Amino acid sequence: MATQNANHPHFNLPVTDKNQPPIINIFSYQDFKTARNQHLKTSNKATKLAGSLSSMLRLHIETQIQKSVDRPKLNALNIEEKQNTPAMSPKEDISQKWREIQGSRDWEDLLDPLQPGLRKEIIKYGEFAQATYDAFDFDLFSEYCGSCMYNRHKFFDKLGLGKSGYNVTRYIYAMSHMDLPQWLEKSRFVDTWSKDSNWIGFVAISDDQESQRIGRRDVVVAWRGTVAPSEWYDNMQRKLEPIGQGQAKVEHGFLSIYTSKCDKTRYNKHSASEQVMKEVKRLVHLYQKKGEQVSLTITGHSLGGALGLLNAYEAAKNFPGLSISVVSFASPRVGNIAFRDELYQLGVKTLRLTIKQDVVPKMPGIVLNESLQRFDDITGTLEWVYTHVGVELKLDIRSSPYLKKRLNLVGFHMLETYLHLVDGFHGSGSEFRGNSRRDLTLVNKDCDMLIDELRIPPNWYQLANKGLVQNHHGRWVKPTRDPEDVPSPSMESLQNNALGLGDSYGLESSFGFST
Amino acid sequence: MATQNANHPHFNLPVTDKNQPPIINIFSYQDFKTARNQHLKTSNKATKLAGSLSSMLRLHIETQIQKSVDRPKLNALNIEEKQNTPAMSPKEDISQKWREIQGSRDWEDLLDPLQPGLRKEIIKYGEFAQATYDAFDFDLFSEYCGSCMYNRHKFFDKLGLGKSGYNVTRYIYAMSHMDLPQWLEKSRFVDTWSKDSNWIGFVAISDDQESQRIGRRDVVVAWRGTVAPSEWYDNMQRKLEPIGQGQAKVEHGFLSIYTSKCDKTRYNKHSASEQVMKEVKRLVHLYQKKGEQVSLTITGHSLGGALGLLNAYEAAKNFPGLSISVVSFASPRVGNIAFRDELYQLGVKTLRLTIKQDVVPKMPGIVLNESLQRFDDITGTLEWVYTHVGVELKLDIRSSPYLKKRLNLVGFHMLETYLHLVDGFHGSGSEFRGNSRRDLTLVNKDCDMLIDELRIPPNWYQLANKGLVQNHHGRWVKPTRDPEDVPSPSMESLQNNALGLGDSYGLESSFGFST
Repeated sequence: MATQNANHPHFNLPVTDKNQPPIINIFSYQDFKTARNQHLKTSNKATKLAGSLSSMLRLHIETQIQKSVDRPKLNALNIEEKQNTPAMSPKEDISQKWREIQGSRDWEDLLDPLQPGLRKEIIKYGEFAQATYDAFDFDLFSEYCGSCMYNRHKFFDKLGLGKSGYNVTRYIYAMSHMDLPQWLEKSRFVDTWSKDSNWIGFVAISDDQESQRIGRRDVVVAWRGTVAPSEWYDNMQRKLEPIGQGQAKVEHGFLSIYTSKCDKTRYNKHSASEQVMKEVKRLVHLYQKKGEQVSLTITGHSLGGALGLLNAYEAAKNFPGLSISVVSFASPRVGNIAFRDELYQLGVKTLRLTIKQDVVPKMPGIVLNESLQRFDDITGTLEWVYTHVGVELKLDIRSSPYLKKRLNLVGFHMLETYLHLVDGFHGSGSEFRGNSRRDLTLVNKDCDMLIDELRIPPNWYQLANKGLVQNHHGRWVKPTRDPEDVPSPSMESLQNNALGLGDSYGLESSFGFST
Repeated sequence: MATQNANHPHFNLPVTDKNQPPIINIFSYQDFKTARNQHLKTSNKATKLAGSLSSMLRLHIETQIQKSVDRPKLNALNIEEKQNTPAMSPKEDISQKWREIQGSRDWEDLLDPLQPGLRKEIIKYGEFAQATYDAFDFDLFSEYCGSCMYNRHKFFDKLGLGKSGYNVTRYIYAMSHMDLPQWLEKSRFVDTWSKDSNWIGFVAISDDQESQRIGRRDVVVAWRGTVAPSEWYDNMQRKLEPIGQGQAKVEHGFLSIYTSKCDKTRYNKHSASEQVMKEVKRLVHLYQKKGEQVSLTITGHSLGGALGLLNAYEAAKNFPGLSISVVSFASPRVGNIAFRDELYQLGVKTLRLTIKQDVVPKMPGIVLNESLQRFDDITGTLEWVYTHVGVELKLDIRSSPYLKKRLNLVGFHMLETYLHLVDGFHGSGSEFRGNSRRDLTLVNKDCDMLIDELRIPPNWYQLANKGLVQNHHGRWVKPTRDPEDVPSPSMESLQNNALGLGDSYGLESSFGFST
């Protein structure tokens, strides 16, 4: 159901005993953090170990596939028929209504029932966000751990998005000055591409054909997510930090990832903020000079959604009048009420997709605020109230006949689960769309959410032999990465120099502290 | 170090409290059982969960890769050099000494130091046993779960053994009338190739060229292992069952797998015993009629080693005078002293490879007999004494500079670990062979035993996307199995009819109970 975001004050209290987090946090952290590390999958030995241990502890942790009961009988024929149809219906021309679809009227009358053209745009942006996961090198045994596996020129092709109508123009790297040990994916070796930075997303631009279909030149920024709820809760979400000149404050862990830089690093001599703003500036000016309509669409899942809001805030300050929209999935709360209000004043339009059963959009505050309402009046000042931004499109696990319904912290949060549900979402109270076309199999890439009848193995997204190949002697070796896929800061610099951009940024920083 | 097997009486006592197995059993069971299910690997979410849980329980379970300390410094150059050399040195002509190599003189003076020609033969047979794991369909989401993934004609090619000089002539299937729920790998779907049987191994025959090199036509039987130590201990090893007409008794769980059959099944209208004996008879007679020297070599790892001994016993009864050798890896004890003595009288030669740190060869009896010596005099009759058979070649994890040394129940038991150690074994007290050529990477196929400096990911043996592929619509689907790789009992029957073998067996059963 689509609801205009109401004012939900949530109070963020210090954790009562830092050394003794509640048991539930351990599990949620582990779930979220590691579910993404698909290249490091171990045998299900550990799965079963966890099962044994959890039953000893009388905890219910889902480590094994259960035989489900009382499931809707699926027409097997229907499934097989689907396999032989295109995974997406043709995209319609939205050039006359793109402003509404981008939220100019706050998506009024477009969400319930969900307007088909909007649904396709949401999925398009969501697949860009998903690509930041699928292309990420999670392999701790790789010297390129934490980078993107492919260079930007072949990025979309490698990820099956060759027909998306967009081209990647720049990669973004981030680091954090805060100690966020669970955030950075780091190779186990010393001689790696970067000790401090991770690839955190990309900037892309619509090509001529797509621009014609959507009625404007669209600059996209897609932010990768990573972090686990308990991390946010434990490590990051304890403190609001001011941004801008007013009362606006945002969670300082997110801000640290967005703004940290260090001269000694290879990839973060400039912060993620500086990198992305420079590229957006270049593209916006380039196409505005040509007299084209330009939009900026920012997308991200989980942490990526949070970074996207910071990005939108900064972009709105720098490009007054530019159409700026955020399409976020499973984003936690980012800032206080003043931050939200300032975003509204700046004209940023945010469509925030949530799943009713996903705990992450309830972060921070789920434990202290929502469960324990009695703490509500302990702190009073508005500065410390986290709040959500924008218009919510709320999805429901129960709406899909293809999904398992039992508790699954990982599965309920996965972006592919979101994309499946929005693909089938017709409207509140309506049945799951029978003619939804998105490939169901994708849902189980990194989780175990599809009902057994579909016969899709869980967590199937993995490389053959973890990337090892046999050489001409029959020996299994790790091939060196294609040179053009090796991250290189000089390459980015060269590109900038060729474009005459140099290293000067000349953008207004919107952040109160030094950048 | 090679030692003639001494007489170690071990008493098998009933488990004191069946409902309360000691905690250690849970882990060892889980480790062994699931470490083989490489196609079902889940994310390391569960690994980390297990880590958290185990630390809460103050248990040390190895779920994460530790940064090791005090490791020998490896010459990295040496590793890279190795990658560019053949993985095996040329095989020498052993036609003049094959009887000694097959154990005619109980491997006297051949084991310490290990004779190079014998080493190569051990590895050859070990790789046949390893192939039974690598080709096994462990995928619970496959309708062919529990079968071999490839048909016998392309079996060796698919497993990189195309140059082994052998051809597979028949597959063997087994079932068990005993309730051994942890043994049978079974698809989660009802419409599967077989509800009762698993593929348990194969019969192969040396080709002309290899026969010339090794001085005789060699019939090989390779048995797949599966079972976990705690399974043997809990479910199987409680009871000795008589075989033959004398005092010989063997563990009844092993015997059940070897001899069970049922008219209602598709693959076990004949027992594994009957299938293998029929094929061995066919081959032995075929080549003996041609006037060739013939040998039978039986190999297997873990449970496979136990089945191999039963097979050798039965073959020796049926083919007096035939050269019969067993090369077993990590085999548990199988029968009593009378069983061992009868095998000796029948002329069966057994080379039994063990790793000092592997607990499985100490089964059954490790818990009750070796740890609790005080129980020794509770039972007295020789009928109940399990004993090992044959000549032992004892390997040691500590001898290899490439292996992690910390406790690893799975890694110490893996066949690839055995093959690595025997490849590097020179003699007791000697250094690991510097010119050992076997591919080190193989050790980590299904465990985490290689030191971090080698940069080989653990548990790397896995299919790309668990076997899912994209169809022309871009949808991810499970391809149907190549028809020629679909197991089919009629195919085997047809083959037998073509050979004029019909379905009559006409072999002497060596087992006291009905077969």
